Amino acid sequence: MYKKLTEPIVSEIEGIVGKENVLRDKEKLIDYSHDEFALSEAFSFPEIVVKVANTQQVAEIVKIATREKIPVVARGGGTGLCGGCIPSYGGIVVSTEKINKILEIDQNNLMAHLESGVTLKEFYQALKIRKLFFPPHPGEESATIGGLVSTNAGGARAVKYGTVRNFIRGLTVVCSDGKIIQAGGKIIKDSTGYNLIQLFTGSEGTLGIITEAILSVMPEPDAYLTVIAPFHSTKDALKCVPFILKSSARPLAIEFISKQVISIAGDYCGKHWPSIPGEIFLMIILEGTNNQIEHDCETIASICMENKAVDIFVAQAEEKQQEILHVRSIVYQALKSNTIEILDITVPPAEMACHIDFVEQLSNTHNIWLPTYGHAGDGNLHTHITKKTLDGCDIENWKEMYTKIRQFIIVDGIKRGGRISGEHGIGLVKKQYLDMCFNADYIEILRKIKKVFDPFFILNPGKIFDPE
Amino acid sequence: MYKKLTEPIVSEIEGIVGKENVLRDKEKLIDYSHDEFALSEAFSFPEIVVKVANTQQVAEIVKIATREKIPVVARGGGTGLCGGCIPSYGGIVVSTEKINKILEIDQNNLMAHLESGVTLKEFYQALKIRKLFFPPHPGEESATIGGLVSTNAGGARAVKYGTVRNFIRGLTVVCSDGKIIQAGGKIIKDSTGYNLIQLFTGSEGTLGIITEAILSVMPEPDAYLTVIAPFHSTKDALKCVPFILKSSARPLAIEFISKQVISIAGDYCGKHWPSIPGEIFLMIILEGTNNQIEHDCETIASICMENKAVDIFVAQAEEKQQEILHVRSIVYQALKSNTIEILDITVPPAEMACHIDFVEQLSNTHNIWLPTYGHAGDGNLHTHITKKTLDGCDIENWKEMYTKIRQFIIVDGIKRGGRISGEHGIGLVKKQYLDMCFNADYIEILRKIKKVFDPFFILNPGKIFDPE
Repeated sequence: MYKKLTEPIVSEIEGIVGKENVLRDKEKLIDYSHDEFALSEAFSFPEIVVKVANTQQVAEIVKIATREKIPVVARGGGTGLCGGCIPSYGGIVVSTEKINKILEIDQNNLMAHLESGVTLKEFYQALKIRKLFFPPHPGEESATIGGLVSTNAGGARAVKYGTVRNFIRGLTVVCSDGKIIQAGGKIIKDSTGYNLIQLFTGSEGTLGIITEAILSVMPEPDAYLTVIAPFHSTKDALKCVPFILKSSARPLAIEFISKQVISIAGDYCGKHWPSIPGEIFLMIILEGTNNQIEHDCETIASICMENKAVDIFVAQAEEKQQEILHVRSIVYQALKSNTIEILDITVPPAEMACHIDFVEQLSNTHNIWLPTYGHAGDGNLHTHITKKTLDGCDIENWKEMYTKIRQFIIVDGIKRGGRISGEHGIGLVKKQYLDMCFNADYIEILRKIKKVFDPFFILNPGKIFDPE
Repeated sequence: MYKKLTEPIVSEIEGIVGKENVLRDKEKLIDYSHDEFALSEAFSFPEIVVKVANTQQVAEIVKIATREKIPVVARGGGTGLCGGCIPSYGGIVVSTEKINKILEIDQNNLMAHLESGVTLKEFYQALKIRKLFFPPHPGEESATIGGLVSTNAGGARAVKYGTVRNFIRGLTVVCSDGKIIQAGGKIIKDSTGYNLIQLFTGSEGTLGIITEAILSVMPEPDAYLTVIAPFHSTKDALKCVPFILKSSARPLAIEFISKQVISIAGDYCGKHWPSIPGEIFLMIILEGTNNQIEHDCETIASICMENKAVDIFVAQAEEKQQEILHVRSIVYQALKSNTIEILDITVPPAEMACHIDFVEQLSNTHNIWLPTYGHAGDGNLHTHITKKTLDGCDIENWKEMYTKIRQFIIVDGIKRGGRISGEHGIGLVKKQYLDMCFNADYIEILRKIKKVFDPFFILNPGKIFDPE
């Protein structure tokens, strides 16, 4: 179905981006053969990696690829967790690592115009010195803007203002025919035709390659406060969450995590999570004026104490709060060596407790360690399927176990009205579950939309669904 | 191209919904021949109106329409302003007035499950008694949920939490082949495949007929506060807005309006806007805890006073605030008799002042009254193109003048990086400007998306763009 690259095509590409920006050496290609998904069965080498410098170059490469029927996969930070940027059909990886300019931070419109290879870390830094703020925090700060948009990333800080989707005002996208689409702009409200920005967001590089984005930003809040409420059980902790959501407090984030997991993360990065009693923690981030967060903190503290919290810990110093967020954000890395896959099932918030209960029972029944934590404020949960038993031994038949357990957990999530991905995307490794979420008619529509943008399935083939 | 209804087809439809729910009498059809767009040239009669009772009935009607190549236009409250629900190719109007149940207000998930014919007023009332809150307020409360979703309605209260788009969690949509799509659900974060919810939102009934929606709601804030800051000039008022947006205050709404316009609205509805000096007002709505809004109020008051505000008026009593919002919301009605069209151009917020300046100059040069007001917090402006001169006389050649002035204003908005619709949609009457916003490739993509959902252009034909 797909063609291979030939020497003349490679030369043509080298002519566009310069020989030094085309990688062909197998050793150099290793880094581009996988993302953060652990199972090596998913890894796949590209034939070449092209480090593009601008939108025009991307357009020219994609035009060649379509002409020659060669797959093209865009790659940002490679921090994805479901094989979304793996070139599973070979072909060309277009790396955005050199399209990485912060084009403008527009203080008057409160918008940032960024190239897609800008990392989240660079973006946060550029905002910080200008006293601006971008709420979403998808954990891994080496992720790029292109990846953030392509997955509709969320992370912890999505409770108050929503996921990345809500912040995207404009996109520059290269289509499979090499044409460049400018969608949106520096406009906030827009009801002018079908919203292509919203369609590209979360489409995992399968409809076009994002090269620039205009994002809304906010003024840096006067202050942040991080509240940690420890509980004896997951049930107690999660029971508390609806009361917080229904209160007058408007938290930026409500996370839940176990003492066991957070200790592993703390040890891993050498930073300290506050030493407090309890087995399960709610971590609540507040932002606003000093008055506001003080009030919210009091509200939340009393809700938690009235609902079986063991204690309340409040971090006020910026450094301490950063440390706590860092330990929380490093959890994935800390568990990585034992993790086969980290799920990101999303369920109706009120179903969280029952779903976690199900996972805990599964863990006990099958004697498999399934550390589960996540975004308690919005029903998005991360279960790590590990290779370990509950007492830390290796599971011998872990592959078999993994397949079984994964299926159980996903089926339970969907049964509760949930979906298989809240923020990571479907990528390569979850597509077999798509038909549990959607009926055939629905998937047929998704496929037809794919064909509108990419009739030859050149762009990131094998992601979300298989080519025909 | 399209076929006409025949007696057997009408009988078939009557068999589905009952004879009493099919209107054929010309007199009864008048109400369904137009929306709030004023020019009678746009009016067009349907052949029949069908008052459907549920999603299944809609599906059956649409299936017949596709089979017989008869246009189907969904109609909610009929409060649109650009002819979006006018059956411009005749055929069937599917009225959602009887699909109007509030199916569930889910307090645990903080979501409301509504049929598409529920009016905004009914929705607000159902929330109020449960101490819940839906931030968007698109002015006209007889608008229905289906219309809100179809236009991605916004209104004044979209500054802090965004437009309707940000609140939609699930949709039930009937496609042109009569198949029923369930998109989303009671989930907050979702990165599972292309986001059809976001694609349907703002698609003006051209991709499917929305019959149910699940919307996120929030806890009712402890308190609201409405601040009115009067200024001597539009320029002074708008200069102030970026300072408010960059401050620690997070207003729900920032509106601007002239004394002249608000007086007309007050007289029209017999309610009173506060009697304060100044020619141009900023109206800022705050929500949150008492502490918070007090702080925000002080912040905003000092910003305004430092930036040439003449005075500050604060409305605290709920009744007074409702009255102010009512007067602001009734402006369109009050100006209606003199209005040919109300525009809803959206520009980058920093371009607002210059665009309004352009409109004012146009008004003076051509001696035409062009009252302009709108959503200062997000760059979405409403200019009324009227039949009146600046001193209130009738313009004789008003049609000619209208065409010319409209073109000038729209071109200026687009030149500034704006778009022709921020919240009303393109509908019937703005489609000739679509190619000023988008190039041919972009429009081609929109058309191809249309064909994915509606290959025979049966659904609301002639809206956004013409059938081929």
